[in-house]
Amino acid sequence: MEKSFAYEQLALLFAQMPFSQLLGIEITHLDGESARIHMPWRDDLIGNPQQRILHGGVISSLLDTVGGILAAASVVDKLDGEPLTSLKSRLATLSTIDLRSDYLRPGKGERFSASAVLIRSGNKVCVCRMELHNELGVQIAYGTGTYLVG
Amino acid sequence: MEKSFAYEQLALLFAQMPFSQLLGIEITHLDGESARIHMPWRDDLIGNPQQRILHGGVISSLLDTVGGILAAASVVDKLDGEPLTSLKSRLATLSTIDLRSDYLRPGKGERFSASAVLIRSGNKVCVCRMELHNELGVQIAYGTGTYLVG
Amino acid sequence: MEKSFAYEQLALLFAQMPFSQLLGIEITHLDGESARIHMPWRDDLIGNPQQRILHGGVISSLLDTVGGILAAASVVDKLDGEPLTSLKSRLATLSTIDLRSDYLRPGKGERFSASAVLIRSGNKVCVCRMELHNELGVQIAYGTGTYLVG
Amino acid sequence: MEKSFAYEQLALLFAQMPFSQLLGIEITHLDGESARIHMPWRDDLIGNPQQRILHGGVISSLLDTVGGILAAASVVDKLDGEPLTSLKSRLATLSTIDLRSDYLRPGKGERFSASAVLIRSGNKVCVCRMELHNELGVQIAYGTGTYLVG
Repeated sequence: MEKSFAYEQLALLFAQMPFSQLLGIEITHLDGESARIHMPWRDDLIGNPQQRILHGGVISSLLDTVGGILAAASVVDKLDGEPLTSLKSRLATLSTIDLRSDYLRPGKGERFSASAVLIRSGNKVCVCRMELHNELGVQIAYGTGTYLVG
Repeated sequence: MEKSFAYEQLALLFAQMPFSQLLGIEITHLDGESARIHMPWRDDLIGNPQQRILHGGVISSLLDTVGGILAAASVVDKLDGEPLTSLKSRLATLSTIDLRSDYLRPGKGERFSASAVLIRSGNKVCVCRMELHNELGVQIAYGTGTYLVG
Repeated sequence: MEKSFAYEQLALLFAQMPFSQLLGIEITHLDGESARIHMPWRDDLIGNPQQRILHGGVISSLLDTVGGILAAASVVDKLDGEPLTSLKSRLATLSTIDLRSDYLRPGKGERFSASAVLIRSGNKVCVCRMELHNELGVQIAYGTGTYLVG
Repeated sequence: MEKSFAYEQLALLFAQMPFSQLLGIEITHLDGESARIHMPWRDDLIGNPQQRILHGGVISSLLDTVGGILAAASVVDKLDGEPLTSLKSRLATLSTIDLRSDYLRPGKGERFSASAVLIRSGNKVCVCRMELHNELGVQIAYGTGTYLVG
């Protein structure tokens, strides 16, 4: 299987996750090095009605999602030309071990963009750094996620 | 204002948060020492369709929510008999500084229960420890949250 | 090899670590479920001269040390009757992936006690919760550590 | 008091901390935006004798130290021209709330350099990101620290 095709399949799998759909997440970039997702503002994602800002749980969900997609892509990156079925079995065991979210500024905006880069990439565990910005480029949060990948 | 009435008002405020309603969160206990919330399983909260388990973002949302409610209650606990309006202005500035989620077991179950206890309670910052269990008492996650309260 | 003997060997190995000796750490309990270490106060461990309290780095060192010892013991616990040499090769790859320290109260005291329990125990990764108390039972810090064990 | 003079005084205060001296830490840069410290290798900082690498606690100590110095400098940055005595009273209450260390690669090297940048700077709380490199520019660890500054 071509890597670029595998990344596309992966993006599709993650986009079809029920909770990603509930949040309105769209995957806009994915390869073995980095990932990016987007989500438009919606009133039912509000945490604090007086301030009209995203709930902290939505922010953590975006950070975990983009980190998890990249962790999965790092698995693809190491599977040279294996078939899609073996990818699926590898992904079935992929899971988040721990996640730290640092909330820097209120989650205000119309369209949010979360990105991830790999800072540790191993056969068993990988660690990603994530960032969340709004459409004006204001950084809302940082994240660090440790993922079990093998 | 009576403390027990203030806790009830607080629980109401949090239960009315749009994202809490989207997740189906119900607040079942709240005082100045501890908090507990519940959430029933729903298919649109799934993270991994093959495994039918909660999305990690849902788990972090539950942990952050129950910790945040307790952080707010700790503010009530220190406001002796002040009116509800002053509580509201204090709560407007309450926010999560950082959150760590430790995912221990797959999020399987029919009804989930998240609880929080205060481990550091200050005038400016408080720190909560959170746990998530399913209806069989299986622990799914741990959380630690640092909240700005003053 | 008997498990109890393996735990003793492990405690010996950790006690001989140069940095553990620099801090004056003593291992007082170890099995596959929990670990405990002690460290007496020393003036050169001070972080803040005006307050005469332990440096935050000393506190994190104690938390990481007791969690790491327990992570190692969890490996012993799964190696049924294998020889000491195979234990050593397993331990050579044991490492901390990430550590979170929550500083609850100033590090005052004459003798400090750090303990750890396993909250997730796997073949590749384990997660420990740690606590630090002084000789009066006052809790100074909480820790959470994720360790690569296989 | 001139800011540059205040930063120098601050660097001096931190360099004189007993535990910083025990580790051999030297402060090489400090202003309101960033900080940098150095530490030479020493055999008594070893965590794992077989691998001859820094103990994880030493790494966390370096991360916490450089983040803490920057948190203190951010206080100076907001005290316009106040005398040194008021700085000292502000610093007496400065403390680390929580610290996350991500260990990326073994702590090998002859001279280590830890740096910090502010990612959230408030009147009560600030959050720093830290990095640790060896003399070859290899990154050994990332850190995130939340500090109480007011």
